[in-house]
This record gives sequence, structure tokens and C-alpha cells, in this order.
Amino acid sequence: MDYAASAVSNPSSIHELGVITRRKLENARRHVAEVLFARPGEIIFTSGGTESNNLAIQGVVYAASFLPHIITTNIEHPSVLETFKLLEKRKLAQITIVPVEKNGIVDPRKIKKEIKKNTVLVSVMYANNEIGTIQPIKEIAKTVRYFRKSVKVKPSREGLTFTGYPLFHTDAVQAANYLDLNVEKLGVDLLTLSGSKIEGAGRVGVLYKKKPVPLAPIFGGGDQEQSIRPGTENWPEILKFASALQAAQKIKNKEAKRLTKLCDYFIERLRGTSASLIINGDLENRLPNNVNVTFPKIPSDLLVLELSARGIMCSSKSACESSREEGSYVIEALRNTSARQPARPAGGDLAENVGGVRFSLGRDTQKQDIDYTVKVLAQILQKLKKWYN
Amino acid sequence: MDYAASAVSNPSSIHELGVITRRKLENARRHVAEVLFARPGEIIFTSGGTESNNLAIQGVVYAASFLPHIITTNIEHPSVLETFKLLEKRKLAQITIVPVEKNGIVDPRKIKKEIKKNTVLVSVMYANNEIGTIQPIKEIAKTVRYFRKSVKVKPSREGLTFTGYPLFHTDAVQAANYLDLNVEKLGVDLLTLSGSKIEGAGRVGVLYKKKPVPLAPIFGGGDQEQSIRPGTENWPEILKFASALQAAQKIKNKEAKRLTKLCDYFIERLRGTSASLIINGDLENRLPNNVNVTFPKIPSDLLVLELSARGIMCSSKSACESSREEGSYVIEALRNTSARQPARPAGGDLAENVGGVRFSLGRDTQKQDIDYTVKVLAQILQKLKKWYN
Repeated sequence: MDYAASAVSNPSSIHELGVITRRKLENARRHVAEVLFARPGEIIFTSGGTESNNLAIQGVVYAASFLPHIITTNIEHPSVLETFKLLEKRKLAQITIVPVEKNGIVDPRKIKKEIKKNTVLVSVMYANNEIGTIQPIKEIAKTVRYFRKSVKVKPSREGLTFTGYPLFHTDAVQAANYLDLNVEKLGVDLLTLSGSKIEGAGRVGVLYKKKPVPLAPIFGGGDQEQSIRPGTENWPEILKFASALQAAQKIKNKEAKRLTKLCDYFIERLRGTSASLIINGDLENRLPNNVNVTFPKIPSDLLVLELSARGIMCSSKSACESSREEGSYVIEALRNTSARQPARPAGGDLAENVGGVRFSLGRDTQKQDIDYTVKVLAQILQKLKKWYN
Repeated sequence: MDYAASAVSNPSSIHELGVITRRKLENARRHVAEVLFARPGEIIFTSGGTESNNLAIQGVVYAASFLPHIITTNIEHPSVLETFKLLEKRKLAQITIVPVEKNGIVDPRKIKKEIKKNTVLVSVMYANNEIGTIQPIKEIAKTVRYFRKSVKVKPSREGLTFTGYPLFHTDAVQAANYLDLNVEKLGVDLLTLSGSKIEGAGRVGVLYKKKPVPLAPIFGGGDQEQSIRPGTENWPEILKFASALQAAQKIKNKEAKRLTKLCDYFIERLRGTSASLIINGDLENRLPNNVNVTFPKIPSDLLVLELSARGIMCSSKSACESSREEGSYVIEALRNTSARQPARPAGGDLAENVGGVRFSLGRDTQKQDIDYTVKVLAQILQKLKKWYN
């Protein structure tokens, strides 16, 4: 007699079925909170990583009672970088995009220099999705906190008690499988997770929001998720997400060790071929499962397709940008470290704009997969050499 | 070698697995388009009904090159009504909320009277989620189109060719199972669907957007869904949604007939009891599966809990608002038809604010369920009569 609430079950219904579903949902929330060393009330469920990043950034901007200034880097995921540009275009925020260094890591001092009186948010990703570099999150958090103490407390438009701006957000989507997610140790106020990068997790997103942080909703609607994210929670996927996140945490250290070895072996084998190549991004501070390589003069899109034809799935840039003609703005940022916003290299100029090939390993990747990849890659490069040099 | 794109499969990856997934997704899009008599390029997938409604409203507002004016009614779902209030509060739009008549149906002439030079959007739900009344969508569409012809074409900020404002959006979430979804016949420019109200459908939303309609994204991010809705598509759920929508269409007329009979029988049986009651909403223009009843002096929340304790799941208002103390603003709107925005009745004043009990039937509801419900309800009312009169 309640089909209009939901064809399955709605955790916001007050009848028994609703209450049972609500209990399961809150249980999942508690599990996610435990992994982050946070409180259940600090976990907001969204539809995915893109929405979580948007909610963190737009939510802080909308909650500010003045025209706010926000800071990020030039190698963030499009769901951060494009959100910054959208807010600037709509005159809702002033933005600063800090360029990373040649190794794909941002210098915290360069962020510090950009913090102004009206800076409400610094958003720096935990680990990069293309080149796997790990940013100095704890150090940036300290920088932001230091500045925070020295400014007056600004009351938010929503009327909440609040210890002051700027806030610090990190997109931890690519970090979730391998890095420490303790929000207290990291010193972050907002943190994004996505189910789509965790094996067995549902298609949902998480936004950790430290309790006193004022965050305004993007959507108008119902009372779900503390009215910060209206819309019926996708509880079947959330339940899957919570279990998968816990499972990933249990094998995190072991997998990180195994994959680091495997990636080191991969790089060694690649260097052992006759091909000329550049490994993109810092060799120390990187995800254990990421190898991003540029083969000078050889277009990386072509390599991805040639490898795919031989059963090897990898990518040339963020899948979120795959319909664009241009190359990778992340790789471009490493080559051109003075640019605030690296120009998207033109699609036609292949010799100049070959991008990088990203290999991202996972639970099922074994040594023989690396051996096969290197063998096939060497064959492809041999074939392509005739045309590109 | 592509775990960073997705732990499962990403339809935006250019390798073979990505291409296969993309094909499945586009197939699902074609199926949804067929049901709506639309083109595949006019279907945008979102995370749910709340997001689709927000995207329709905020997207039109952001695409306008001036301070826009938008119109809706006072019994819309919170994801429409609260979005209007959010945009007004943020000074991004001027809003008008037209009150419905005593029967829960809006008079198109009252909408016509409110259309101004800067009106960009009229949003009226197809069928109401609480009382099931069906709005005169075709008539409102004609009104809007008539006005559109008489105003000059305004170029959008996004630089698209466009035939002029105001646009017409309808939230068809509650209508999907039973009413005609032919967008050409309805005359709508934007239409919202949600998987959560269709049996077997995944937790996704759809926004139909007529091709020339300028719509700006809410989220910054990747290129998915024509860059109007960035974020990796939830393709496993989208596939389920497309099949379930097709299946619902096939049995639509038969189910509508069966449920209309069942609801008529339900009302007849209810009237046969000694309880005094009011059937809320128009008796002709209503969803075939909805019966909303007010039992004067008896709080509907209490009835929902008493019924739940006896295995009958129904509701007292939108589940999206269940955490609020107040009663139903939809029922309140029927009693107070001059109010632009009906005051939310105070929670404490039970005698004045008893709301309504919504019974919404579905595929598994049979005559014996109605008989059982009426029997149990009569017992509960008998018991409660002593305390509330």
C-alpha cells in the first residue's frame, strides 16, 4: 500500500519496512565512518565521486556569506577543476589554480602564497588519477590550519557555529584502495570517496564533512542526508559500498606492497626494452598500482587501441575526458610547470602531444600479465616506429 | 591494467571493454527514448528524480542570460518546490508559486496570468505524489506555447539556437507507471522520470530534454551525458531501468484499469464503514493506484504506525519529508487554496492538522488486501475514537 514511496523500500518511510531499511543504511554509514575514523553523522552519501567533489566545493561556496575565493591545483580531476571554472564563470567564486612541479606534486608553499582574506576552500587531490602522484596532504592541511588560526572567525550564512576559513578538501577517490584514510591524521575537513574505484562497491559516492563545517546543499528537495543531499538514498548500493570499503581496508597494506613490487618490476622491464620512454610523475610518492609512461613521438591513444586489440585494457587519460579531442592536461602540466591552467594541447599535433599511457593494476593483476604487456608493447612499438620518428 | 578508470567497466574508456559497455548503455538510452517518443540524444541519465528535477530547473536558470523568472504550483514534490526556494534565496531566480484549487488541480489560467517577460520556465507535475491528482499538462503546455510565440527569441548564454522562453517542465515520476508518456503529445520540453517508482528499475533518474532547449550543467566534471550531467553513468542500473520501463509500458493500460476498479472498491468500502472521512484530491483526474484519506481529528502519522504494526505499509506524506515534524503541505494546500505557499501546519496541533493517509497500490495488490486493510483500519479507528474527538 506504499508503492508511491518506492517500488522497493524507502529508508525515509516511517512504517516497519522503512525502519528496517533505515537501520541497514545507518549501519553501513557507521562502517564507512569507522574506516575514516570519523563519526557516522559526518558521512554524506551521494551518487558518486563527481557529485561528492561538486558538493564539497559548491557547498562551501554557497554557505559563505561573501564572494568567496577558492584554491586548487592544475592536475585535479575534471570534477574539481571544471567545477572551479563553472563557479568562476557564474561569478559565484574567485578562483586560483596553482601549478604542480615537474614531478606532478604541488609545493605547499605555493598554495600558502595564494591564500587571501576571502579564501574559504583549498582543494587538493590525495592521489592523481592519471599519473598516481601522492600530494603532501598533511603538510597542506597544516598550512591551511595555520592560516585559519590567524584570521577572524567568519559566521556562515547558514548561521552555524564555525571555527573559520579556509577549509581543506581532498579528493581521495584514487587513494581509497591503498592509502591511509584517517581524516584526523590527514587533517582534512572534507574528503571524497567513490564506489566505482573499489572492487565490489556499488555506484555511490561519499563526502566526509567534519561536523562543524558549514555546507549548503546543491539540490533542493527532501530531508535526506541532513538536508545536505536530498533524494532517496541508493541504499542497496550503499550497503555494497560499505562492505567493499571494509574489505579493501583489510588487504590494503598487503596489496600495496605486492603492487609496488609489481610496478617496480614493470618499470624495470619497460626500461629493459629498446624503446625510449619517460615515466611520468614522481617515482617515490606515487600510488602502488600506477605506471604512466610517455613514448616520445608515439600517440598514446593509438597505443591504447593497439593494446586493446591484443586484450590489454589501459588508458591514455581520464575516461571522463575521453570524448575530447585534446590530449591529457595532466601530462601537459608536467611539461609546462609555469602555466596556471595548462593549455589543452591541440589534438592534431601528434609529435608534440603524445600524452601518456596509464597502466593501473588491481587485485587480479599478476607478474605474467606484466610480462605479456611488456612483450606486446615492444612488438607494437617496433611496428609503429616506422611511421612515427 | 585499467583499474583506475573503474573497478568494473567504464563506458567512457576507449578500449574494447569500454566500447562494449558504451554500446549497452546507448541501447538502453534508445529503449527509454522509444517509450517517450523522443530521440536518444534527448535522454539524459541522472542519479534519480531529485537530481532530474533539479537539473531541469537549475539548468534552465543557469542557461539564461538574464535574471530569470520561474513558475510552479504549491503541491509540487520537495525536489521542485525546495529548488525554487533555494534559487530565490540565492538570488539566482525570481519565483512564483501558483496555488492549486480545492480538488488539488491547478487552473491553467492562473499560470497564464503569472507569465512575465523574463519567465523562462513553468514546472508543473504530471501527477501528485501524495493525493494522486493529474494536472492538465496538455492544456498548460498549450498556454506556455501560445505565450512563447508572442515573445521575441532570447539567445541563451550558452550560445545555442533556441526558439524562445518560457519552457515547460513536468515531473512525471508518479505518472510513469500509468499515464501516457508521449512527450510530443504532452507538449513538454523537459520531463523527469525516476527508477525508484518503477518495479524492477534501477536507482537512476532520467531527464528528457527536447533537443534545442538550452540547459547548463549543475555539476562541473567530465564529458558524460553531453557534458550536461558529468560523472560516470551508472550503467548497470540504467540497463535495469530501461527494461523495467518497457515492461511497465506493456501492462500499463491493463494495470490502470485493474487498479482503478480496486481503488473505487476501496473508497466504496471505506465509505461503508462508520468512520467519518474525506477523500483528498479530485475523484476523476487521479492516478489509478492512489487513495488519500483524511480521518478528521485522527493524526495520520499515528494511523500509519498502527497500520504498520498490523503489516500494512502506507504513508502520511512524502517520505522525502518524513523527518519533519510538520504535517503534509499538500493536504494543507487543498484546505487553504488562496495561499501562495501554504504555511507548514505546526506539528503539535493535532486536531487541526491530521493530514491524510496515502494508500498507493501496485502490481501485487489484490482485492483481499483491500478487504484486510478496511477491516484493520475500522478496528484501529474504533480504538482511537475514544481519545480523539
